[in-house]
Amino acid sequence: MERKILLAIADGLGDRPCDILDGKTPLEYAKTEHLNYLAEKGSTGIMDLYQAGSPVGTDLGHLILFGYSIDDYPGRGPIEAFGNGMELIGGDVAFRCNFATLDNDMKVIDRRAGRIREGTEELASALNGLEIDGVKVLFKEATEHRAVMVLRGPGLSQAVTDTDPKKEGLPVKPSLGKDNNPTSKYTAVILNKILLEAHQILSKHPVNISREKQGLLPANGILTRGAGMMPNIDKITERLNFKACCVAAESTVLGVARLAGFNILSDESFTGNIDTDIEKKASFAIEALKYNDFVALHYKATDLMGHDNDPLGKVKAIEQFDRMLGLVISSLKQEKMENVVIALAADHSTPCERKEHSGDPVPIVICGKNLRKDNVKCYDEISCANGGLNRIKGADFNRILLDYLEVTPKYGN
Amino acid sequence: MERKILLAIADGLGDRPCDILDGKTPLEYAKTEHLNYLAEKGSTGIMDLYQAGSPVGTDLGHLILFGYSIDDYPGRGPIEAFGNGMELIGGDVAFRCNFATLDNDMKVIDRRAGRIREGTEELASALNGLEIDGVKVLFKEATEHRAVMVLRGPGLSQAVTDTDPKKEGLPVKPSLGKDNNPTSKYTAVILNKILLEAHQILSKHPVNISREKQGLLPANGILTRGAGMMPNIDKITERLNFKACCVAAESTVLGVARLAGFNILSDESFTGNIDTDIEKKASFAIEALKYNDFVALHYKATDLMGHDNDPLGKVKAIEQFDRMLGLVISSLKQEKMENVVIALAADHSTPCERKEHSGDPVPIVICGKNLRKDNVKCYDEISCANGGLNRIKGADFNRILLDYLEVTPKYGN
Repeated sequence: MERKILLAIADGLGDRPCDILDGKTPLEYAKTEHLNYLAEKGSTGIMDLYQAGSPVGTDLGHLILFGYSIDDYPGRGPIEAFGNGMELIGGDVAFRCNFATLDNDMKVIDRRAGRIREGTEELASALNGLEIDGVKVLFKEATEHRAVMVLRGPGLSQAVTDTDPKKEGLPVKPSLGKDNNPTSKYTAVILNKILLEAHQILSKHPVNISREKQGLLPANGILTRGAGMMPNIDKITERLNFKACCVAAESTVLGVARLAGFNILSDESFTGNIDTDIEKKASFAIEALKYNDFVALHYKATDLMGHDNDPLGKVKAIEQFDRMLGLVISSLKQEKMENVVIALAADHSTPCERKEHSGDPVPIVICGKNLRKDNVKCYDEISCANGGLNRIKGADFNRILLDYLEVTPKYGN
Repeated sequence: MERKILLAIADGLGDRPCDILDGKTPLEYAKTEHLNYLAEKGSTGIMDLYQAGSPVGTDLGHLILFGYSIDDYPGRGPIEAFGNGMELIGGDVAFRCNFATLDNDMKVIDRRAGRIREGTEELASALNGLEIDGVKVLFKEATEHRAVMVLRGPGLSQAVTDTDPKKEGLPVKPSLGKDNNPTSKYTAVILNKILLEAHQILSKHPVNISREKQGLLPANGILTRGAGMMPNIDKITERLNFKACCVAAESTVLGVARLAGFNILSDESFTGNIDTDIEKKASFAIEALKYNDFVALHYKATDLMGHDNDPLGKVKAIEQFDRMLGLVISSLKQEKMENVVIALAADHSTPCERKEHSGDPVPIVICGKNLRKDNVKCYDEISCANGGLNRIKGADFNRILLDYLEVTPKYGN
């Protein structure tokens, strides 16, 4: 059978028993007939994304779910760049940026340039393509005052300090090398030159002249943070020759997906919160399965409720995730797409009581026609710990799914 | 108690639910009272030979079961050489060969020299011991037109291309270095000289003169493929100081066993298929246990049925494997060999629906007097996933068995 994979990821799903939920986890407490259906029909287990007891971020968690290792982790900058639609190559150094308002002495008047919303595309264009000492600048606006900058050239380093002083009234912090490697100092020097040059260019830009006329703060400076170097890794879809797609709202998840070579399906109605449009998400996932071998369907609100220490909110989010899976399952049946393996996972646990990511393992399911099943009937942290997949790592989980696509190498003969 | 180990390996045993077997795996469906007896009396689990989700070949699977890691994998050539009764040392480069019929311009007339069956021992002798530029040739005939050649000398490389053009009418392909390492080019040059010299020697050989008189195609050339370098690994039986034996039919398995320092027990009645002589296999295993600490008893037909997508055939093969274990168990009882630990394993899964090796884990059992037991009562993929050994790797499994022999090192003090 030529299988396809639908991997549904509930962000931060894993949790701990909550007093307010009669000592159950939100996932145990929630009514989840569709998730339980998948658990009953499939094999279950628990998963440590990186290693037992180690919390991971959303970015690394997804990087692993999509087939990479912690050694491939490029830091925030490159992931934001990919999430922002940029294409990086090995050796590029990427920064998360703010448009800011500076005075003539590079002192920060407003770190967000009056929360500028319009004209940033033109401002970014004015910086994009800049070249300083043989290093090329790629620059692209993001939401509101945010932007991403990429430096491309030989001998760059990501070990440079942030230039954002984090406080109004202070000057832009000159970047320094974080270590004694000469490439770090070299990169910091270039970065400082670029920020000076950017200030010159932006100060004269028509968008800013017009803003000043309207009494708005000009976006005449750039603050950088989160430098990260893009490692020399290939897109997993190209390495293993399969087609993949990610249906998601969050730019971090979309960034990791694009880094991995996935196509992207997003929509304004995907809010990354409890008011997201699960009908459209489910229908996008079904459509994507027609043209892709592997589809990741991401759901965010579970994580937010964990961070907010809102067990009942998390229960609601889980029940919404369950409804989304119900829509997926019934559409697959209706379209007679029997060859789709449905997998459930999370990128990490976000226990309500901790309000942060934790190292608790997450429950997993793999459910497909003629694949092995076990005796577990519920999708939750406790039941799945008795499952037939046992306790595996994120890398194992990804490899198992790709083995069902028959795209991974056989070792030996 | 001074224990001994009997490791019974059903090749390619692991499978997936089959429609024709009411949604059961062949192992679940088969009547296997003896395998279930061992599961009930022992501890069970599931095993990933190399890593979860990665298919392995029979050669690597056995290499791991016998105590080696993937880094020790030497490629096909050396394993064929060992299987063919040759002894390799670290740095040797081995090739799988055909005797072929060439014309005077080294063009291939028949890739198998008329499927020659007789006289290959004499022809091989004529090449064995040849020396070119300080590199020694070891040459040995195998079944029919097949042979194995080993090059021994300093500075050789396995990164050389095959010389078999794979098609009649084409000349022998001169071997080339596969990379820029000078040792690769050097090895390719030597290999080409040897093949020219072999053509000279074989063309004049009495066996071939006689063949030509009878109107048969002469075996006057050698075609090579599958170069592999023997790594610097020691025999595990010598490293850990125990005696081991392998009862098997298949030359690949016998090759890995000899590489590992196992003695070999084989017989013409061991066919590597469903018509093999399980009574003799069982009795060989019992005999071997009297003189060895560790005996591997290999059974092949399960894998063949998987490759043929023959679930009912696989059920039959499994029931034959079960009968073989029944004979072993009753003989051990009869001979009061209470100290024998019986372990069940497979080298990989070969799901019928896939007709190829897959990354699905294989079920395992370890059953020995006064060793731990669990609550699992059936030997199959689903039951054993709940077993007391949990999900372990092939390397773990081997180490656990050798620990019962008390031959592995203790770490720390």
